[in-house]
Parts: sequence; structure tokens; C-alpha cells
Amino acid sequence: MRWRPDWLRGYNRRIAGHDAIAALIVTLMLIPQSLAYAMLAGLPPVTGLYASILPLLAYALFGSSRTLAVGPVAVVSLMTAAALGPLFPPGSVEYLGAATLLALLSALLLFGMALLRLGFLANFLSHPVISGFISAAGLLIALGQLKHILGIPAAGQALPQLLPALLEGVPQTHLPTLAIGASSLLLLWWVRAHSKAALTRLGVAPALAGNLAKAGPVLAIVLAVLVVGALQLEQAGVQVVGAVPRGLPTLVLPTLDLALMRQLLPAAALISLIGFVESVSVAQTLAAKRRQRIAPDRELLGLGAANLAAAFSASMPVTGSFSRSMVNFEAGAQTPMAGALSAFGVAISALLLTPWLHDLPQAVLAAAIIVAVLGLVDLGALRHTWHFSRADGAAQLATLGGVLLLGVEAGILLGVGLSLLLFLWRTSRPHMAVVGQLPGSEHFRNILRFAVVESPSVLSLRVDESLYFPNARYLEERIGELIATRPLVRHLVLMCPGVNLIDASALDSLEAIVERLHSAGVQLHLSEVKGPVMDQLKRSNFLERFGGRVFVSQYEALRALDPESTQRAQSREAG
Amino acid sequence: MRWRPDWLRGYNRRIAGHDAIAALIVTLMLIPQSLAYAMLAGLPPVTGLYASILPLLAYALFGSSRTLAVGPVAVVSLMTAAALGPLFPPGSVEYLGAATLLALLSALLLFGMALLRLGFLANFLSHPVISGFISAAGLLIALGQLKHILGIPAAGQALPQLLPALLEGVPQTHLPTLAIGASSLLLLWWVRAHSKAALTRLGVAPALAGNLAKAGPVLAIVLAVLVVGALQLEQAGVQVVGAVPRGLPTLVLPTLDLALMRQLLPAAALISLIGFVESVSVAQTLAAKRRQRIAPDRELLGLGAANLAAAFSASMPVTGSFSRSMVNFEAGAQTPMAGALSAFGVAISALLLTPWLHDLPQAVLAAAIIVAVLGLVDLGALRHTWHFSRADGAAQLATLGGVLLLGVEAGILLGVGLSLLLFLWRTSRPHMAVVGQLPGSEHFRNILRFAVVESPSVLSLRVDESLYFPNARYLEERIGELIATRPLVRHLVLMCPGVNLIDASALDSLEAIVERLHSAGVQLHLSEVKGPVMDQLKRSNFLERFGGRVFVSQYEALRALDPESTQRAQSREAG
Repeated sequence: MRWRPDWLRGYNRRIAGHDAIAALIVTLMLIPQSLAYAMLAGLPPVTGLYASILPLLAYALFGSSRTLAVGPVAVVSLMTAAALGPLFPPGSVEYLGAATLLALLSALLLFGMALLRLGFLANFLSHPVISGFISAAGLLIALGQLKHILGIPAAGQALPQLLPALLEGVPQTHLPTLAIGASSLLLLWWVRAHSKAALTRLGVAPALAGNLAKAGPVLAIVLAVLVVGALQLEQAGVQVVGAVPRGLPTLVLPTLDLALMRQLLPAAALISLIGFVESVSVAQTLAAKRRQRIAPDRELLGLGAANLAAAFSASMPVTGSFSRSMVNFEAGAQTPMAGALSAFGVAISALLLTPWLHDLPQAVLAAAIIVAVLGLVDLGALRHTWHFSRADGAAQLATLGGVLLLGVEAGILLGVGLSLLLFLWRTSRPHMAVVGQLPGSEHFRNILRFAVVESPSVLSLRVDESLYFPNARYLEERIGELIATRPLVRHLVLMCPGVNLIDASALDSLEAIVERLHSAGVQLHLSEVKGPVMDQLKRSNFLERFGGRVFVSQYEALRALDPESTQRAQSREAG
Repeated sequence: MRWRPDWLRGYNRRIAGHDAIAALIVTLMLIPQSLAYAMLAGLPPVTGLYASILPLLAYALFGSSRTLAVGPVAVVSLMTAAALGPLFPPGSVEYLGAATLLALLSALLLFGMALLRLGFLANFLSHPVISGFISAAGLLIALGQLKHILGIPAAGQALPQLLPALLEGVPQTHLPTLAIGASSLLLLWWVRAHSKAALTRLGVAPALAGNLAKAGPVLAIVLAVLVVGALQLEQAGVQVVGAVPRGLPTLVLPTLDLALMRQLLPAAALISLIGFVESVSVAQTLAAKRRQRIAPDRELLGLGAANLAAAFSASMPVTGSFSRSMVNFEAGAQTPMAGALSAFGVAISALLLTPWLHDLPQAVLAAAIIVAVLGLVDLGALRHTWHFSRADGAAQLATLGGVLLLGVEAGILLGVGLSLLLFLWRTSRPHMAVVGQLPGSEHFRNILRFAVVESPSVLSLRVDESLYFPNARYLEERIGELIATRPLVRHLVLMCPGVNLIDASALDSLEAIVERLHSAGVQLHLSEVKGPVMDQLKRSNFLERFGGRVFVSQYEALRALDPESTQRAQSREAG
């Protein structure tokens, strides 16, 4: 994991120009998003800016993707709010401290996964679980922001609390706030859907038009600040961002409250894993487009460094953003320098623009969030997954429903648990076939599908799967059944061409099988055992003790154990 | 699951005689064990007798094993104590009520698993985890009983509490209790190790001698009751069983405290699963010896019925006992009638013998437990497992250490979690091979092992595993790497003879791979796809959208995509 910035060699003015343009466009997206996602996380908006400076530099130094744009992200902000909401009042000093601690814990977990090569842990999150979670998160976020659009108080982490709170609040809707929120929603929706076409019709080059369209939220913010200032709407009760401290974040060490860290650990683990999975999948997609590679272990390091930087900036957990990374790539970013330049842009803004943010209405930020996250909701995916596989559909539905009804953590755990259960269920009954000799050949095939010759005294059983704990018991059961119904059998040959691994559970099962077969007067043998599996068996004393033989092929086994039947099959014409 | 007592047909006097002898011997073992295991569970000893009447009848009616002996079992009693100890003072009415509720919950869970065919859940408990748990349980039980041998108070569920409590208590050792406890230990050890040989030397037939040796604990009890009565040791401070209510259990409905049931649910789930796994493995071993079969789903039903009966007898969770089942089988039991007769024997004892139990010292029961459970401890198994496979050894060690240091539930969960993790890790990197054409043939082999012809424009990749969520991400990574290092490649053919299943995660990965390959100018194709997998792919729109072809064989693929290379390989002499 030595740091090799291979992109720095050969860095020149042309590449720098590309990076600078991409950085400018990403910064225009990042400023409103970072303010909005901080609010979504229950934090002062300025912490969003802080999360968009040092973390970007840290990722540029340590990450492996050339174009991933890290920083505050909607889903991670929701998870932050879900973890901290039940513990502290949003906006309090304790809440902010806990958000910082959450970033620190995520950093430590990501570093730990990088060091111990535990990136495979992300495999626990199957695609249906992630897809169900993202859709549910999008819905929850959008619904949760409605309170800012309506100008009412309404709290709740999941639908059973959130919906009644919203419905109760509707009669108290604050009309000036609703006017600002609704017109922001309309403006942002129009910019997103139609501005590129409109600008192109006005003669703007399509590429530039597309980039200008990304600045929609900035436009909404500027307009809203002007309107609120001119009409003195703050005095009319419109909630605004208020005084924002000017300048860069001061570097602070998070307070290490061990009891709180323990409490936050599960949330930090989920945030790290989901953030990692989402980042890697974006980074892989972008890298492949230019036949570049990313190193998943380096990604863990890069994201860990970004979160560590977020923790020292008194900010919140960050990860790679899907939308900003796509924009960064399409705007022509060539190297991580683009990310560093974005950080510089945000830093300048924090120094110069913060006084102007005082009059920014929260409703505009909420509108920006809603328009951004509704793109995450994909309920059609549920239908596709269900149609493709009932098991995967069930896992996706459980995650979606679990997150909506029970909350983020419980929902994800439900989905992960269910997909593990279904996985175990699927792998616990491997395909096994009783095989017989194809007449006129040395081949053995399933007796249910081919007209083959079966020896009355030798049972040939082919296992099409590695033998390990999920299926060890099934092997015992199947062999017990087969022997109980075949009183003449004296030898059982287990044909192992599909066995890539035998674990300790399966070894115990094999030993139990041998013993039970012995007491029933049957001897076990093995055939077609792969080299690595033989090596493994030799590390136990199974081969000395089981009393049977290991044959190179099933044909050899039958020739040794029941020569008559073999000859009969050999001499007969192939049917 | 219709109840078919096939053993009842043809039941005759000869079989009844065998069953009766086995029942007598098992009853002689069962009476002291049931008293002792009730004490171990923190319950009045008489509840052990209650757990050995109706549950045995219930299992005889509904179970599928002919010779399994159910009732109180050391490990389950320990788990009961571990679950209830932190909640209520042992011996209190609430404690007894909670034990009954635990039996009821176990019954419901076992019935639920039977109905929903969830017996495969037991696969979560790999053999190393069970072995580590049983050894640790044996050690914890033996250490926990030392307090009764020494006559001191000492509480604790795991070593960090138990050891200091024992060491602190040693100076207060009650010498008369220690005298009884130590001599019981000596007597029981001698009977177990040497009495059969001694009796045989005295001319007793070996079979009878073996059966008499099983009555060692009864002998110890009788002697101890006589000594305590004669020397009035209760007045000297020796803890005795005390007044035992005479007669049969009155049938009662457990009080349904929903909050408590929720609290007990995890413990009940572990007790059910571990009890089920242990029972089934004993039952399978015994059935195989006579080429009989057991039906795991019927076992769930039988054990559920036994626990339901235990709950209605105001008793505690029960399961199949390894030691008593072996004795039952070896003493010649032929049918479940033996179990019913044992129940009858215990019922008679509860009616007639209970007044005599008043003077029974707890130290004797503790000695009986210690001698019984030390046979469970098998630390050598840890070395064997570790030698055979590091991953399995780690899971076993984690369970052993976890149970000893953290307690029963935490230890098992640690072991199960670790074995799932390691399993996922192992399956997350399936074997994949870049293959090339064997000169002079239509076969394709690993380029690392054979002198094969590789096409410069077509990459042939064979996957030797089903594609599902644990390895979906790895597939993406590997293909990304391979393409990044082969700039000339225009087609990638994924050879799927080893793919038995594609789940939704792998389908998503395939779609992401297709898209990334497209943007890199490479087209994906498939070859040698099995029928069921094709059917599954047809349930999605992948085949219409991926833009490639599905070839019957890798040779067909190469002939279509790079005919020149195929001809070159065909015409060349086999190397």
C-alpha cells in the first residue's frame, strides 16, 4: 500500500486545464449539496462545507480512483441522522460531537478493513439489499424534508413516526415558506429536466449547456437569498440558515467518549460498508470507461483518510458521491487533482461567501435534497428482481419495507439476515446424483437421466459441490436414506470431481458416515478427488482410518469393487 | 407429517422384554441425572423428575428415532441457567416460571421450524462451533459445580466472574460437605472406570456388569442419604435437597408474559437449535447402526412435543441425551416404548421415592454432574481442527474462548459469526482461469498449466463456481483487471460449465460488466451455459440487452469470433 501517485508523473498544463474545468463544475454542485446534506444529517450547514475541504484532499492523496468525487452524500447523511437522532437533540453540541466521532469511527473501521484485507465484508451486502435500502432511503429523505418545505416541525426516523407527524403538521403550514419551497422545487425540476435543451436552443454549446444545468441549485440559492433579503422574510417566520461562521474549519481532536463510541459502532460499521460499496461501484464504472483500474484495498484507505480528515474538521462521515463523480468524469477530470481543486473552491467559498448564506431559506436546501434523492428511488427494480428470483426479491422487499417501517439499521440488518438465510438455504442442498456406467464406455452418468448399468453391491454417488458446513448435514441425511433403501449395497463410492474444498464440519460428517456405514456393513471409498482436496485430507488422519480406498476414476473403483458388473456394462452395446 | 407408529404393528412380547430391560437401566441413570440437571439449571431438583415423565411420552408419540432418550441434559440446563440467572434469583417462583416459559418458547420454535421446514437453520452451527461450545460448556459446568462440592456460595456465568468467586470462597470450605463431595467423586470415578472389570472378575456376565455400572450415581445417592441421615449432617450445615413434593406434576399453563418471552427468545432459539443438532446427530448415529432412518422434520416435531409437555409440567427445556440414548440402544431398546416405560419408571419414583430424597446432599448431585460432563470436554479436538484447517480452528477457538470468557450466548454467536465470515471469505474468491485452445483439439484449458493457443482479440475466461452475491464483486474486479492489461481484446467469452446458479447480485454485476466492457470497446459473450441457468437468465432481459451471443461451446465461440486463431490451433500439432 505504498503511495504511488503515478498520475503526478507527466502532469502538464493540458491535463491541469481539464481538471480545473471539472473542479469548477463540481464545486458549483458541491456547495449547495454540502449545505443541504449537513442539514439532512441534523448538523449546522457549515459543517457540510467543512466536510468538503480536507476530506477531498485526503482522498486525492490516498484513494485509487482518478475521478471519484468524495464528500457529503445524501444516504450517509440520512444514516448519520438515524444514528444520532435518538441520542441527542439535533444541532446541540453533543450531537455535533457525536457526528465527528462517527466520522472518526468510520475512518478507523475503514483503515482496519484495509489493513486486515476485510474489504470482502462488503459482500454481505447483496445487490438486492443495497437497492432496497437506497430506494427506501430516498423515500425517507424526501418525506423527511417535506417539513422544511411546509415550514412545520415534524420528527421521526421511519414512516410510523414521520407520516403522522407530517399529517398533524399540515394545518400549521407556513405559507411564505411553502411558497419559497414549492417554487424552488419547480425551478430545480425545470432546470434538471429542460434547461439543457432550452440553452442549446438558445445557441449554447451542448457540453456547456449540460454543465450550466448542474448549477441549478446555485441559481435557486442566489434567487432565494435575494428574495428573502428584499422581502425581509426571516421576520415573517421563514426559517433561514442564519449566522454562518466565516473561515476555514479549525482542526480539533474529537472527544474520545468510549461509551458513546461503543454505542455508535454498529452505525459506523454500516456507514463504512455502505459508503465503501457505493464508492467502489461508482469508481469501478468510471475506471472501466478509460480501461483504468481501481484497487479496492486502496479505496478503503482513501475513504478512511477522507473520514479521518472529516473528523478532524469537526464534521461528519463522507464517502464517494455517485452524482458528483459522474459529473466530474463527464466534465473531463483526468486526475485526483480535480478533487483537490474542488476542495480549494469550497475553501474559498467558506472564506468569502459565508456571510451571504445568512438569509438562505432551509426550504431551498430541502428542495435541492428532494430533487436529488428522488432519482435514487427505483421501485421498478423490485419487480424486476422478484421476477428474476423470488429469494432475491424477498430480500429486497424485506430491506425496503424494513428501512421504511423500522428504520435504517434495523431494515438493513433484516435484509442482510434474510439474504444470508436464503443463501444458506440454497447452498445447504447441493446437487447429488446416483450414477451408473454408460454401456460400452468408462463414463458414469446420473441414473435418472441415462440408461446406465448400476452395480447391485456398489453405490456410486456424485457430489456436485464443495463439502462444507452448510451442506454437511444434508450429505449425512442423503447417504443415510440411500443406504436404508438399498440392502444389498456393500460399497459406497463418493465421486468428488466437483468437490473443491472439504471443511472440518464435512470431515466430521464423513467420519460419522464412515462409522454408520461400517455398522451397517458398508465401506466408503472416494474417487476422482482433486489434488488440493487430497492434500487437505492428508492433514487429518481420515485417509488412514476410513478403511476405504481412493480411486483415480469411478471406472477404476467399479473395476476393483465389482469387476463383473463393469464387464457386463463394457460388453453391452451403448443404448 | 401424519403420525404412523409403524413400530406398533408387529409389537410383541419379545420386543417388549427388550424395551423393558433398556427402560429399567435408563431409568436408573435418569433419576439421579434429572435431579442433578435441574439443580444445574438453578431449579428445584423435583422439576428434573417432572421433565422426565410427560416429555418422554410426548417424544415417544411424535419423534422419529426409535432409541433416542430425551429429558434433561447438562448442556441445555447450563443454557437455561445462563439465560435465567441474570433475570431472577435462582429457586424463586419467577425463575421457575421463566424456565417453564423457556420450554414453551423452545416448543413453539421447534414446531415453527417443523412447519416452515427450517431445519436447515441448524446448518448455521458448524461442527467446530458446536465442538467448541460443548467443551467450554463442560468446563463451565464442572467449575460451576465445585461450589456445591466445597459447600460455598459462588455465582457467575463465565470464568471472569466464576473463578474469583470460587477462589474467594475456598477459605470458607465446609469440611463435612467436602468430605461427602470428594468421596462421591472418587466413588463415581471408580465405578465409571473400573466397576465393570471388577464385576466381571467376580463372575458377573459382562453385559450385566456394564449395565450395573450405569447405576453408580444411584449407589452414591443411596449411600449419601443413609450417611447424612445417620450422622444428622443437615444440622451440621450440609446442604441437602430438602422437602420434595410427593406425586406427579400438576398440569399447568405457563403464564404468558409477552415482555419476558421477547427477552427469552434468543436463548430459546439457541437452546432449540443446539438441542436439535445434538439430538439429530445421536439419533442418526443410532438409526444407521440398524439401517433405520430418522426424519429430521419429524425430530423437530418430537422435540417440540417434548418441550411442550415439559412446559405444561412446570418444568424446563429438554432434548435428546447422548449418554442415555447410547445406553438405551446398547441395552437393547427396540422401539419408543422403551422411552415410555422410562417415563413410567420415573413417575413411580416421583410417587414413592421422593420422601427419601430429603436428606440427599447437593454435593452428591454436583459430583454426578462433574463426572458426567468432564467426558464432554475434548480440547484435543481443537488441535486436530486447527491442524486440518486454520479457518475452522479459529471458529472453534473463538467459540471455546467466547463461551468461557463471555458466556454461553455471546460465545456461540461469536463462533457462528466468525464461521459465517470465514465461509463468506472463502466463497468470495471463486476459482477463475483464463483458458486457451489445446493445439489439435477443440478443448480449452488453463493457460497457466497447459501449452495452449490464446487468441489476441478474444479473451476466454472460465468460472468454476456459481455466480452469487458473495463473489459478484470479485467477478467485476477480476474482469476489470484482465481487460485493463489486454488492450487488444475485443471479445470476452465467459465459459460457464461450472455455473449452477446466477442470483440477482451477479446479474447486476454482469450488467455492470457489460456496460464497462462496452465503454472500453469489448463485447461480452457466454458459452456452455447450463439449461437451468439459461431459463433463469430468460426471466430477466439480460439476454436481449447484453449485445453478445450465447455459444454452445467455447470452440464454437472462438470459431465465430476469431476463425483464424482457431484454424491455427487446429492445424498445429498437439504439443
